[in-house]
Amino acid sequence: MREDVIGRSRVEDTEELERYYEELRKFDAGALWTVANEIEPWYPQPRSVPMHWRYEDLRPMVLKSASLVSGDDAGRRVVMLVNEGRQELSAAVGLLYTGLQIMNPGESMTAHRHAAAALRFVIEGEGAWTIVDGDRLKVGPGDFAITPKGTWHEHGNDSSQTPVIWQDGLDIPLVNALDANFYEVHPELHQVPGKVVNTSLLQHGAGILKPDRRGWSKRYSPLLAYPWEMTYQALLDQAKVSEGTPHDGVIMEYVNPVTGGSVMPTMGAHMQLLQPGQATQAHRHTGSVIYHVAKGRGHSVIAGRRFDWKQNDIFAVPSWAWHEHANDDDRDDACLFSFNDFPMIHSLDLWAEAAYTEDGGHQPVG
Amino acid sequence: MREDVIGRSRVEDTEELERYYEELRKFDAGALWTVANEIEPWYPQPRSVPMHWRYEDLRPMVLKSASLVSGDDAGRRVVMLVNEGRQELSAAVGLLYTGLQIMNPGESMTAHRHAAAALRFVIEGEGAWTIVDGDRLKVGPGDFAITPKGTWHEHGNDSSQTPVIWQDGLDIPLVNALDANFYEVHPELHQVPGKVVNTSLLQHGAGILKPDRRGWSKRYSPLLAYPWEMTYQALLDQAKVSEGTPHDGVIMEYVNPVTGGSVMPTMGAHMQLLQPGQATQAHRHTGSVIYHVAKGRGHSVIAGRRFDWKQNDIFAVPSWAWHEHANDDDRDDACLFSFNDFPMIHSLDLWAEAAYTEDGGHQPVG
Amino acid sequence: MREDVIGRSRVEDTEELERYYEELRKFDAGALWTVANEIEPWYPQPRSVPMHWRYEDLRPMVLKSASLVSGDDAGRRVVMLVNEGRQELSAAVGLLYTGLQIMNPGESMTAHRHAAAALRFVIEGEGAWTIVDGDRLKVGPGDFAITPKGTWHEHGNDSSQTPVIWQDGLDIPLVNALDANFYEVHPELHQVPGKVVNTSLLQHGAGILKPDRRGWSKRYSPLLAYPWEMTYQALLDQAKVSEGTPHDGVIMEYVNPVTGGSVMPTMGAHMQLLQPGQATQAHRHTGSVIYHVAKGRGHSVIAGRRFDWKQNDIFAVPSWAWHEHANDDDRDDACLFSFNDFPMIHSLDLWAEAAYTEDGGHQPVG
Amino acid sequence: MREDVIGRSRVEDTEELERYYEELRKFDAGALWTVANEIEPWYPQPRSVPMHWRYEDLRPMVLKSASLVSGDDAGRRVVMLVNEGRQELSAAVGLLYTGLQIMNPGESMTAHRHAAAALRFVIEGEGAWTIVDGDRLKVGPGDFAITPKGTWHEHGNDSSQTPVIWQDGLDIPLVNALDANFYEVHPELHQVPGKVVNTSLLQHGAGILKPDRRGWSKRYSPLLAYPWEMTYQALLDQAKVSEGTPHDGVIMEYVNPVTGGSVMPTMGAHMQLLQPGQATQAHRHTGSVIYHVAKGRGHSVIAGRRFDWKQNDIFAVPSWAWHEHANDDDRDDACLFSFNDFPMIHSLDLWAEAAYTEDGGHQPVG
Repeated sequence: MREDVIGRSRVEDTEELERYYEELRKFDAGALWTVANEIEPWYPQPRSVPMHWRYEDLRPMVLKSASLVSGDDAGRRVVMLVNEGRQELSAAVGLLYTGLQIMNPGESMTAHRHAAAALRFVIEGEGAWTIVDGDRLKVGPGDFAITPKGTWHEHGNDSSQTPVIWQDGLDIPLVNALDANFYEVHPELHQVPGKVVNTSLLQHGAGILKPDRRGWSKRYSPLLAYPWEMTYQALLDQAKVSEGTPHDGVIMEYVNPVTGGSVMPTMGAHMQLLQPGQATQAHRHTGSVIYHVAKGRGHSVIAGRRFDWKQNDIFAVPSWAWHEHANDDDRDDACLFSFNDFPMIHSLDLWAEAAYTEDGGHQPVG
Repeated sequence: MREDVIGRSRVEDTEELERYYEELRKFDAGALWTVANEIEPWYPQPRSVPMHWRYEDLRPMVLKSASLVSGDDAGRRVVMLVNEGRQELSAAVGLLYTGLQIMNPGESMTAHRHAAAALRFVIEGEGAWTIVDGDRLKVGPGDFAITPKGTWHEHGNDSSQTPVIWQDGLDIPLVNALDANFYEVHPELHQVPGKVVNTSLLQHGAGILKPDRRGWSKRYSPLLAYPWEMTYQALLDQAKVSEGTPHDGVIMEYVNPVTGGSVMPTMGAHMQLLQPGQATQAHRHTGSVIYHVAKGRGHSVIAGRRFDWKQNDIFAVPSWAWHEHANDDDRDDACLFSFNDFPMIHSLDLWAEAAYTEDGGHQPVG
Repeated sequence: MREDVIGRSRVEDTEELERYYEELRKFDAGALWTVANEIEPWYPQPRSVPMHWRYEDLRPMVLKSASLVSGDDAGRRVVMLVNEGRQELSAAVGLLYTGLQIMNPGESMTAHRHAAAALRFVIEGEGAWTIVDGDRLKVGPGDFAITPKGTWHEHGNDSSQTPVIWQDGLDIPLVNALDANFYEVHPELHQVPGKVVNTSLLQHGAGILKPDRRGWSKRYSPLLAYPWEMTYQALLDQAKVSEGTPHDGVIMEYVNPVTGGSVMPTMGAHMQLLQPGQATQAHRHTGSVIYHVAKGRGHSVIAGRRFDWKQNDIFAVPSWAWHEHANDDDRDDACLFSFNDFPMIHSLDLWAEAAYTEDGGHQPVG
Repeated sequence: MREDVIGRSRVEDTEELERYYEELRKFDAGALWTVANEIEPWYPQPRSVPMHWRYEDLRPMVLKSASLVSGDDAGRRVVMLVNEGRQELSAAVGLLYTGLQIMNPGESMTAHRHAAAALRFVIEGEGAWTIVDGDRLKVGPGDFAITPKGTWHEHGNDSSQTPVIWQDGLDIPLVNALDANFYEVHPELHQVPGKVVNTSLLQHGAGILKPDRRGWSKRYSPLLAYPWEMTYQALLDQAKVSEGTPHDGVIMEYVNPVTGGSVMPTMGAHMQLLQPGQATQAHRHTGSVIYHVAKGRGHSVIAGRRFDWKQNDIFAVPSWAWHEHANDDDRDDACLFSFNDFPMIHSLDLWAEAAYTEDGGHQPVG
């Protein structure tokens, strides 16, 4: 890793130095200059690579899992998506985990909680429910829900006929990297939910009005579920007054209505709308993102590779990778749900961003 | 104001002291103990009294104003409501101003701005519009809109037939008490509005989603208008999961979606719902409130006086006055809109509150 | 108050209108256009005027008070300073109160508390102490101390020989204007102080280090006394690297070490240093200020009037009045202590400021 | 990792499942239940172990490095301290890096900057200086200094005779784990420092007073150096009024005077004082800590292992490891400097803590 640049390490190995390094090792020490150029790179060097998972590939595997293992035995029956460069961490990109969870008709899981935070994006099935700290949520396709750090949660499927499949997103690799994960099984195995379903939505869903003197000191949103209809309408409304950003089109972030900030301190989530035929320009930034195609078909170019996607496909953009998106349908809009570690990146003041300025903002595709 | 209590001033006047006071006056000075008990009262001593204005009284007067003076000559053609104890300040209660503004069919006003903040609650008429810093808002009965400090604003009535009447609320007496008021006429007399009506609602009305990277550093809400339908629905939703507070029933505050806090730094606004037949318990608190009956009929007891109200009546509760509300219809709900100076009271850490605990929470009516 | 300008009220009185106004009064109402130009001025119109109180005038009066009334009978034995335009509020300027308090050798007062906040600047005498919420503070000349809203406090003079005189500053007129004042006498008449004197200074005086996991959720500084020596040294240090501002020279604000913000939510305090011979340029701003000459001699020009001051003199600058300061000693520096309502002005987003740009920044003196 | 507990994964491997797992791998997928128990542990499972580095071991190695490589060639000539369980990350504990840097008399380095944040604790030598974003700091033994993310910095030794050795602390492993590191060499290789040395200390060192209208929107402290004398005095003052915490004795955190919070968003730093003979009780918490013995001698028990330390020794406590400290001198106090990742842990809401309650709070030593 020698670099012949002033301000970088350019020490050449000698026998004397090798002996010195050997001696240092005895004291649990080392010479910084032997690793400095590697651990202080000119710009981020993620091990994660761009990934694309086709729902048509994954769905049969997920259905198969439902016949192979019981939900009870598995803890949760999830097919997780693993980045080629992050297998040792079971991460999909960066320090984010994702997977597809299936619940058979009538099935339900036991309750647990953990220091890792979770979110869900529902793909198919009408009977899905989840109880989060006693609030029973009914969720359907396109709905976004959160299970913040430390909240008791359990899931199930009320339907008598169709399975439920949703995508889980968690910050497990992050919380493990920070040596801060805890896990607990509910002492009663199940919570007793409140009488009214979707309490959090009834209380906090207005967004522009709040319960007077709302008592909430927790660090995550008291609103736990965000329906697809409200989300899509918000995008359509926004599109009437704004073209959005050159890199993302019309894009909105799900927010904690108490603070106007991200839904949880480690992970945020967005939904964006690409107009028929729209192709955005490339940019890159610190922070990792996992996308789910909520609607439509198109393609993205990530770090010079093209990925063609359609509904329910999942793809991932590593930190500092150039990326741009295109809606390949010229009559219907396309919607991309995504979640990310941006709240953490911003908390730690590590955000950086650059626009791709050549060729009208479009990368060469390799 | 002598009080024979340790820790209070109990100095008796003597001739020697009178001469001393006279001497002090020459130096623009005085003896604190001559006024101490008055300026440091045991509890708040507002000069404001409880007030009630009947819309059936006010409406004819407001209509009459529309024929007596032109909007242009008046600046704004407003019948202001004045507290008996606050006539020198043109205040309705405490340091809050309110009035009823009328705009004839086809009429419009010139644009101006001021350091005082304003809000509107629309009473009648379908053609009302207001342009606030370039955003043209259409507002109808039951809608709440804000004109924050320093924003250019102008109003008008698109209707060809019916007048518009709305209630204005301003912090003019407060801003004057703080010697901080400024006024400016728009250099062009009129703003050029943006192409899309109700831009702020399309952009920020979702509440639970925000435009990504919303740039907003101002101290007031970027959302300028809050429709009645969304507000009433939020109350109905809330009522499904909560009885609200014993003093106010189901009550929600209009919020700045960027922060989750009050719409402006000096004034906040609420809408509350009283179930058929519901009678709340009395409490009192620092801060002044002006109510507008948005829906229904009932009565309030304020500082021991009963006021029977119906739709579009206005009433005012001074600081530290006991107050309780009742819906006197046993089949339909009642809704009270209100605005207040609570954001200021909280900023300055001057909030105090007490519940009336005797007789089931109900004051004797004098 | 008619003004013949578009956007201002220019309605001429007629008999018909007079009858209309009369009718409005019956309904506790009025026509806005009859007062609009007055209550919405082009810029602030304070009733307060610039004031200057000479310590050589006040000191004999203060000493005399100590022989005329007992501290016990007076509550507090204070000569208050009253603005010519604010006599009905007992205010020194704007909504700020100030006075000079004297305690005879060996004297002490009973404990009380109030919703109004207080601060002290010690003028003379070595035996002064104050107990604030159980922390016994020893203070000497040049020291600044606070008695925040709601804290129990009592004062005394340990000296066997010399009286103590200090300046009190309170927000009484403000808190009364907001109808939010409360007063309480300590149930035991006296507090039991902690064992160690100046606990708050020992705990929080380092400023650049804090007690780990400092529990403090109150809205005011846990540091209650700011010694003169530290303050003066901070100005000398600052002066080594900065000329300060053109309007104030080297100026520092006393801060709440928990937040880095002002010491209390309604009032802030500064100390500024004028180099030998330095004359600052004029500016004006919203917010009212009361100055105390902590050191040296010089003059200030306020709203075109010149006031020559020397040590322990007090002067006041109303909102929006042009003001500039000069050190008239060409060998020694001068220091001005001041307190103000800026924290409130900023909380309510009412700050405005302008520099005087003509004649090198100096007003004509009338 | 099978665990036979409800709510945990307890799937047994079968041939059918093995084939299924094989198939999943083709789609860059896996079965969560094969890793769930490992990646969702009951409590943190850091790979870092407790470490102790003796200065008497390290010092000769550091001096030797100064003769083996030139500062220029090394970039920075640093002996880094490496945790046995974190060699691949060059981390001393958790995601924190530390090392000992030496500068020969008269030597200086070129300027660079990076997204990783750095801090220094000076061990020996009188001529040390560092220029951080143009502010030239002089630092001596016991002083603490910061080089926040993105600030240009360069170091040197003014002394003609003695080398300077200081300890560096950086969040390099953290910033790399988040794929957010950047590095830049100063275009001129050197900064032009301001005229006055220690500007930041002169401007912001008072702590309890701030420059009026201090403009500072950056996320780190504008105060860049914290002298030993002020730090030690703050501990002695604190010790007069508080015994501190049972786990740490009298302990203070270096703060950003603008906010009262930690000096940087990723790392914080403390100094603590152990009274002669004092032995604290054990506790554990999330977050990693690196200690430097600033004064005295004693021992710590970490995760059941005893480490005897004396001045300038360094030791490390992994996340969730029980730890307790003792001053083994019964006449003189001992001081431990430490730095940590607590600001990040708190930002991400991942703080957890427990006290060791058996045996008077003392762990068995293995």
